Amino acid sequence: MKKLQFGMVGGGNGAFIGNVHRRGATEDNMARLVAGCFTRNMDKNLVTAEAWDVDDLSRVYGNYKEMAEKESQREDCIDFVTIVTPTDSHYKIAKCFLEHGINVVCDKPISMTLEEGEELKKIVDEKKLEFGVTYTYASYAAIRQAREMIDHGEIGEIINIIAEYPQDWVIVSTVAENSDQAMWRLDPKRAGKTACCSDIGTHLEALISKMTGKKLERVLARFTHYKGSPLDHDIQILLDYEGGIPGMMWASQLASGSDCGVKIRIYGDKGSIEWRHTSPMELIYSPLNQPPRIITANRAYNYKACTELCRLPAGHPEGFYEAFGNIYKSYCSHLLAKYNGEKPVTLRHPTIEDGLAGMRFVDACVKSNEQGNIWIDV
Amino acid sequence: MKKLQFGMVGGGNGAFIGNVHRRGATEDNMARLVAGCFTRNMDKNLVTAEAWDVDDLSRVYGNYKEMAEKESQREDCIDFVTIVTPTDSHYKIAKCFLEHGINVVCDKPISMTLEEGEELKKIVDEKKLEFGVTYTYASYAAIRQAREMIDHGEIGEIINIIAEYPQDWVIVSTVAENSDQAMWRLDPKRAGKTACCSDIGTHLEALISKMTGKKLERVLARFTHYKGSPLDHDIQILLDYEGGIPGMMWASQLASGSDCGVKIRIYGDKGSIEWRHTSPMELIYSPLNQPPRIITANRAYNYKACTELCRLPAGHPEGFYEAFGNIYKSYCSHLLAKYNGEKPVTLRHPTIEDGLAGMRFVDACVKSNEQGNIWIDV
Amino acid sequence: MKKLQFGMVGGGNGAFIGNVHRRGATEDNMARLVAGCFTRNMDKNLVTAEAWDVDDLSRVYGNYKEMAEKESQREDCIDFVTIVTPTDSHYKIAKCFLEHGINVVCDKPISMTLEEGEELKKIVDEKKLEFGVTYTYASYAAIRQAREMIDHGEIGEIINIIAEYPQDWVIVSTVAENSDQAMWRLDPKRAGKTACCSDIGTHLEALISKMTGKKLERVLARFTHYKGSPLDHDIQILLDYEGGIPGMMWASQLASGSDCGVKIRIYGDKGSIEWRHTSPMELIYSPLNQPPRIITANRAYNYKACTELCRLPAGHPEGFYEAFGNIYKSYCSHLLAKYNGEKPVTLRHPTIEDGLAGMRFVDACVKSNEQGNIWIDV
Amino acid sequence: MKKLQFGMVGGGNGAFIGNVHRRGATEDNMARLVAGCFTRNMDKNLVTAEAWDVDDLSRVYGNYKEMAEKESQREDCIDFVTIVTPTDSHYKIAKCFLEHGINVVCDKPISMTLEEGEELKKIVDEKKLEFGVTYTYASYAAIRQAREMIDHGEIGEIINIIAEYPQDWVIVSTVAENSDQAMWRLDPKRAGKTACCSDIGTHLEALISKMTGKKLERVLARFTHYKGSPLDHDIQILLDYEGGIPGMMWASQLASGSDCGVKIRIYGDKGSIEWRHTSPMELIYSPLNQPPRIITANRAYNYKACTELCRLPAGHPEGFYEAFGNIYKSYCSHLLAKYNGEKPVTLRHPTIEDGLAGMRFVDACVKSNEQGNIWIDV
Repeated sequence: MKKLQFGMVGGGNGAFIGNVHRRGATEDNMARLVAGCFTRNMDKNLVTAEAWDVDDLSRVYGNYKEMAEKESQREDCIDFVTIVTPTDSHYKIAKCFLEHGINVVCDKPISMTLEEGEELKKIVDEKKLEFGVTYTYASYAAIRQAREMIDHGEIGEIINIIAEYPQDWVIVSTVAENSDQAMWRLDPKRAGKTACCSDIGTHLEALISKMTGKKLERVLARFTHYKGSPLDHDIQILLDYEGGIPGMMWASQLASGSDCGVKIRIYGDKGSIEWRHTSPMELIYSPLNQPPRIITANRAYNYKACTELCRLPAGHPEGFYEAFGNIYKSYCSHLLAKYNGEKPVTLRHPTIEDGLAGMRFVDACVKSNEQGNIWIDV
Repeated sequence: MKKLQFGMVGGGNGAFIGNVHRRGATEDNMARLVAGCFTRNMDKNLVTAEAWDVDDLSRVYGNYKEMAEKESQREDCIDFVTIVTPTDSHYKIAKCFLEHGINVVCDKPISMTLEEGEELKKIVDEKKLEFGVTYTYASYAAIRQAREMIDHGEIGEIINIIAEYPQDWVIVSTVAENSDQAMWRLDPKRAGKTACCSDIGTHLEALISKMTGKKLERVLARFTHYKGSPLDHDIQILLDYEGGIPGMMWASQLASGSDCGVKIRIYGDKGSIEWRHTSPMELIYSPLNQPPRIITANRAYNYKACTELCRLPAGHPEGFYEAFGNIYKSYCSHLLAKYNGEKPVTLRHPTIEDGLAGMRFVDACVKSNEQGNIWIDV
Repeated sequence: MKKLQFGMVGGGNGAFIGNVHRRGATEDNMARLVAGCFTRNMDKNLVTAEAWDVDDLSRVYGNYKEMAEKESQREDCIDFVTIVTPTDSHYKIAKCFLEHGINVVCDKPISMTLEEGEELKKIVDEKKLEFGVTYTYASYAAIRQAREMIDHGEIGEIINIIAEYPQDWVIVSTVAENSDQAMWRLDPKRAGKTACCSDIGTHLEALISKMTGKKLERVLARFTHYKGSPLDHDIQILLDYEGGIPGMMWASQLASGSDCGVKIRIYGDKGSIEWRHTSPMELIYSPLNQPPRIITANRAYNYKACTELCRLPAGHPEGFYEAFGNIYKSYCSHLLAKYNGEKPVTLRHPTIEDGLAGMRFVDACVKSNEQGNIWIDV
Repeated sequence: MKKLQFGMVGGGNGAFIGNVHRRGATEDNMARLVAGCFTRNMDKNLVTAEAWDVDDLSRVYGNYKEMAEKESQREDCIDFVTIVTPTDSHYKIAKCFLEHGINVVCDKPISMTLEEGEELKKIVDEKKLEFGVTYTYASYAAIRQAREMIDHGEIGEIINIIAEYPQDWVIVSTVAENSDQAMWRLDPKRAGKTACCSDIGTHLEALISKMTGKKLERVLARFTHYKGSPLDHDIQILLDYEGGIPGMMWASQLASGSDCGVKIRIYGDKGSIEWRHTSPMELIYSPLNQPPRIITANRAYNYKACTELCRLPAGHPEGFYEAFGNIYKSYCSHLLAKYNGEKPVTLRHPTIEDGLAGMRFVDACVKSNEQGNIWIDV
């Protein structure tokens, strides 16, 4: 099987997320890292390249523009680039690679403004390129099982959606020293108009979308700033999904004791499904009037679309790295099928559409909050 | 120690709640059931009286008016009456006993309308009577521990309040035969303007109030009706508490698999406290930047105000009956201190004030929902 | 319905367990407390009598012998006596009442020696009396559900039994002041030859027996004494049940952080059932190769033999008091049926047979431990 | 930093474990896979080599002897070989590489017999080579935290050890089709004298040893065979550790519903620590007479020896792959320090000593079981 080749922009400054992408992309032996501009410091750049087995050091570049240009001129140009820089540079880097005809995988959110996101989408469409977005939580195997169950009618018609994402890093930061790496998320110039909403609220939005397949229609949002912070650190949002499905979302960066505590519950008229990030391999499925069942992702009784995302036998915990692997597995499969002129695979990774949906969600929430917590169409 | 004597109106029609009150009131040997009008069917009335050891059958009455009148004329008149009828009769029965100078313990909500509630409050104040309200969840020993911890600054200043109460009985009813006993809750004529909000939303409001001591200032509510039901069965509410504390509440009667799943989380700037009704003896206390701790109510390390509500050694589960016992323990202690001219005890049971607060909360929520989900002052 | 009348010996010295029995016996309105010798201090005796609504103070006795004698001479003699004294007096008190023709409910263990237990059994048989034993854990509603499931083949043939009971009160005692009430359990003269084995090991033995219906054949036990204690505080036991079923038991009074943490798992060739005392209303049922299911005792989907032991609607936690209520419910039903010449009810409470089985178990364990951890027939 | 080079024997037949080793070894960028004999089928061998980025196909060998010989002759010989074949070939392959002067990482158990294990140890010592063994459970970051806590006296003196490992794959196999990959574990010729004891019991033994640092002195074991199986599938073992510490172990392959449910509890006279594989990032620490605390491995409040094994920020689940990474991280650090003549690092990975201890444990258990469940010195 042909293996894809990819490059990376960012990730070399000691941030954990670069390695998460690298491991995710190579998890299923479908891609190999061959080029990169991991940091603007060329010494560190080379150290990262060696650490990550980039053998041809001529493909380690001092800046992303040079990388896009030189790679696009090679016959063995990278098949895609992964962008893992802070949010404020996503748009310009993605745009540059797209314009050079190179496919992109980009961290979320894809841009600082909705307009930028729409522009990226336009280029993707024009150039018929592939743009993946790494909404992690939406990509766990158990979430795929949930979606299959919902699509097969196992909870009936959806009647309610409750999602939350409490974490505590911002409030812990107030008593602890913190790395610069995290702190850019609290700087409006780098993080954008919102902190909590664009950083983790948008994860919930994508998670709901991937888990249910339902379209968000409008939001009513209330943001809370903590002790004079310029940014929101707690968001409480009412949601309206297509077909009159109500929903509710809470995300907070001030919730002492919470470990990226994503929890989502989808209620239907024949049952419900719950998933918690603290036990990412599990679903709790409660058929109406029957005992709740604890479904483990890598058990044989699940849908194939779930088990094919599990890499270990039942009972062996997989985690965050593997969720990234699932995104790249779908993205690479799609790319390979396209290259080989094969029948398109079912897209299970978040795409530019999902990235844009995230931008629209944040935009509507900001407006709702600014206008006194009123309903705003997405 | 003098023992109080009490009577009961309602409870004799096979409803479980009558016995819950009886056991709660007698739990700590402070009161004895001596009179009652348990049902309007005199045969059943007598059967209940015998079952519950009411020895003097002349104190078993055919209707509540007769009971109030005759008891009030006795030298050994009951010290209080417990009202456990459906909601639509609370007001008139409570009013009748109050007017006859008899103290009252009443199930929540205390009336159908805010005006009725205010009228009851006026009589209570004029006659200097004691009016207890059985908000159960607010009365678990662990909640008392939480309140002490908050009052002692263990979570710092409160910055957020998240409460939920999913249950599934309404949606289960759609596939199951149900007793009349539950069904009155779905009849607007008997349950009042709302189902979910006044039945269980109001439990959450009282729980927050008792757990934090904070005053609710305004609400933004959205009600959902299920498949043409005349009443709300799912409510999602944004809350504003005094001092700018945001809050969020979700209650649902449509949540498959949920067992009266009350869960409340109070976040402060130095830690958080969580309580779940499914493990009612436990609190999860997460001091900022330290490991969460699982506090068990009947352990010696707790505040006395908590441990004195525990009747069994550490490790023995107490439950719903004991929460009722806690209400009556405080109510009876208060009454006895008053009778004996002793220093007033700290009131830890919900009173007419709490009952009225519940009515105001429901009233504001109904308005907010009717007016398109806008903020309404409580 | 005729109500039974009962008396109590012990329970009046401030021990929580007296009230647990009283509430248990009266829980379902089948019996009324009319006589007692709650303590040898007559003043306290009368205080307890008043607190517990014993109206006829002539039936409050200064010692148990007088009580047995006088009651047996009354036409309205108590129907049964409940014995809640420390272990060392169980035998003589039970014997005395039995010899006066009075039925007995006795705390476990029923005696200090196996021989005493056998003697009690002989009298019970000769006099055709009813002897109940309060093995609490075996009496939760969820355990009844488990037994029904096992009897109906839902886990197939039993292939393994794993039981544990960690608690920490002895080790906590080493750093805390303790009431005399607990301390008698550490005095060999009063507690008998063993502490952990007879106090809590025997609970596990009874729980296994009631949950599975299987007969214990032999044991291999190892006792551990803590820092020079004359008694065992940790026991580890291999078990052999009829039909070659292996089992394992661990009980400890030294397990920091454990809250009467009884946990039992029954494995069959078609599934397994697990119960934990910390969530006493729940079972976890894992059918072979299917997702585990969380069964809640008071849900409609259970066997009637379980739901008829639940007194509250689904989602309302019942606890330790109610487990006692279940013992008395079966015991009283049986007694009433016998009195009324009705068809005998299925005995679901522990009887003298179970009490004796407990004595035989302890006896065999002591021998096995003394002889160097070898197999001893029960 | 110099990167180590390694080869692999086995892993190419579609077994998941090969990739687990590869990812583990490369997780922290300390080693690179450069050679291998992944399977005896040369076509598949090459496919695996390509998938795993072995660039120099001349280092893909048809059999392990050729590999050992040719690699040992290269100037750039592999620094170590990883052996991931079925148990029956561990000894001969390990011996071959050791004799060629090549360091080894080997799956557990290291051999079929204790004698073979001792022979391997002798060669390792003579040749001063490094031999790592992949006892996974002992290598989670949280276990390292537990060990630090114990070493720092946070639970005082150890007084009891309770370990269990229920899984259900053997009993599930009886109703499901199974891959050959698992089935070799049920063939005495390939798996050795025992199934459950050597496969998973030995994991518990290593886990206890790494978590506590205590030495096992004797065992009393009882094995259960399932329905005529030639091998044990359930083992129940009493343990004696140095200093008179009692312990108990249960492992089963017949426990319906169990997902590699390793659980270990270490009790001390000042507190206890519990770890469960189903939540591998967590410890439950219960200081005597204080609330239990939930410690998460990647939180800042932990010992450095724990946090340095965490690769993601607090709240991001790491799993089984990362536990393997921890073994290789310690092994490679040790090897590099040795190469560079640096001060030896603290060995935190299981070595040949641990591998031998596992063999001695299995040997003693087999004897104990065969001789009627008597104590056997290890």
